[in-house]
Amino acid sequence: MSAAARRVAFQGARGAFSEEAAVRLLGKGIEVVPCATFEELYRALGEDRADLVLAPAENSLIGSIHRSQDLLLQSFLYIVGEVIHPVVHCLIACPGASLETIRRVQSHPAALAQCERFFAAYPHFQKVVAEDTAGSVEEIIALGDPTRAAIASRWAGEYYGGSVLLEHLEDHRENYTRFLLLGSEPGAPEHGDKTTLLIRVLHEAGSLVLALEPFARRRINLLKIEGRPVPGHPWEYRFQLDLAGSMAEASMAAALEEVGHVTQEMRVLGCYPSAASSPVAGQRRDVAEVHS
Amino acid sequence: MSAAARRVAFQGARGAFSEEAAVRLLGKGIEVVPCATFEELYRALGEDRADLVLAPAENSLIGSIHRSQDLLLQSFLYIVGEVIHPVVHCLIACPGASLETIRRVQSHPAALAQCERFFAAYPHFQKVVAEDTAGSVEEIIALGDPTRAAIASRWAGEYYGGSVLLEHLEDHRENYTRFLLLGSEPGAPEHGDKTTLLIRVLHEAGSLVLALEPFARRRINLLKIEGRPVPGHPWEYRFQLDLAGSMAEASMAAALEEVGHVTQEMRVLGCYPSAASSPVAGQRRDVAEVHS
Repeated sequence: MSAAARRVAFQGARGAFSEEAAVRLLGKGIEVVPCATFEELYRALGEDRADLVLAPAENSLIGSIHRSQDLLLQSFLYIVGEVIHPVVHCLIACPGASLETIRRVQSHPAALAQCERFFAAYPHFQKVVAEDTAGSVEEIIALGDPTRAAIASRWAGEYYGGSVLLEHLEDHRENYTRFLLLGSEPGAPEHGDKTTLLIRVLHEAGSLVLALEPFARRRINLLKIEGRPVPGHPWEYRFQLDLAGSMAEASMAAALEEVGHVTQEMRVLGCYPSAASSPVAGQRRDVAEVHS
Repeated sequence: MSAAARRVAFQGARGAFSEEAAVRLLGKGIEVVPCATFEELYRALGEDRADLVLAPAENSLIGSIHRSQDLLLQSFLYIVGEVIHPVVHCLIACPGASLETIRRVQSHPAALAQCERFFAAYPHFQKVVAEDTAGSVEEIIALGDPTRAAIASRWAGEYYGGSVLLEHLEDHRENYTRFLLLGSEPGAPEHGDKTTLLIRVLHEAGSLVLALEPFARRRINLLKIEGRPVPGHPWEYRFQLDLAGSMAEASMAAALEEVGHVTQEMRVLGCYPSAASSPVAGQRRDVAEVHS
């Protein structure tokens, strides 16, 4: 990746958690490209509006973000990196508003669901469902209505000139989102320490074990397995596997060769530096320590 | 289960897909208990507001419904049955409205996302995000505003006296939701042909294969595997396994015994008649044939 300003697409309004994660991974020199929907995000490279895409993969409380994962499987993009970003929810209102003036609190349904204790403590606050966290901040700041607030990141509050009334609304502090960095070319395997595969196996007894055993036998750790429905084939699944190790290692290469023979379909989605191995990992630990 | 009127809780407003699925599985003699949220649904048995709970488990296009699944894993309820219900989305408006008068179309985000071709065909229709499909019908009928419509089931349209303007808005006809019937006591294993387990394995190479191999060796088909995050332990997972077969069979009993020794935690969530084995399966095939 060159040192020139890279265009990095993310889903959400300016100030979204995804934008913050992109800056965390790639630095402040990037040019951010906000996309309204996941569909738009996954088209950004093909339409030459971005050089890289940062897409959410999973949250440590909620699990996988399926719409994004399904679009990745349909695309021809490669995973070239990842970043783990803490989710800290703030209550943001227009300047001059206070906890006493607020009546309605708006955000994405997932953010509202992660702040149940907060809503139990303020039972007169009415929840308002919206499409976006940062977009909710933009909306309530534009309205200038002191009875309305949004739940979003401090970053979003600062970006739109909002006032942060409360921080850490989230029920669980161990709340992280893992984002994948996607590009149109695969990364160099020798720089990777994590490999992600897509496999499809026969719908019969033992077929999944057959596909996993070549990794187990070589002591390659399966970090994650996620089945996704096959459209048009109800109750059949493709599996995304995250494995510890690089394709540049002989044991991984041998396992992949074997797995290719016992699966209906196998595709390497990427071999990339894991968040644990990147310089950002240090920051992440700091945050985790502060939170725990 | 007695022949007396049973109280069956479901999530959603009256007329929801879940209510229709409950009647499909248990007949019209049941007393339905609508619950506003999944949290309320999973409390309904403990609070003696219902005898059974019907909870959505997964959709053939979207995948698992995680909030419901997580609450099941936290509960002490048993799976005692399942039903597979086709999702057919209709455009419903108040009597007197027509396609020409509609400007805004409201529904649950998942329903809006499943009708992309419909919105592409009517680009001037504005999407409005709401908490519920049937609840959206109730709201627009109460408003009596001919510029507004909702996306929900025909059942919901009829329940609230709405007018069905279009049927089959869904992009994919192979769109089914699988619901689990939950009770406070386990069902009789001899009536079951499907067994669902929760396991937690060590976070190390080969541990999942070790836990799946006893089933594979006995030709017990793994119908589904789904990893869920362990709260407070980012990137560790518990797995829900759906297996073909009953605990009353010697091979399944032997496999479970073995798996208990190689896992950190194992719990049988239920042994129950699968949708494929129940009388409803015939109906389901009919619907599938009509759709394909």
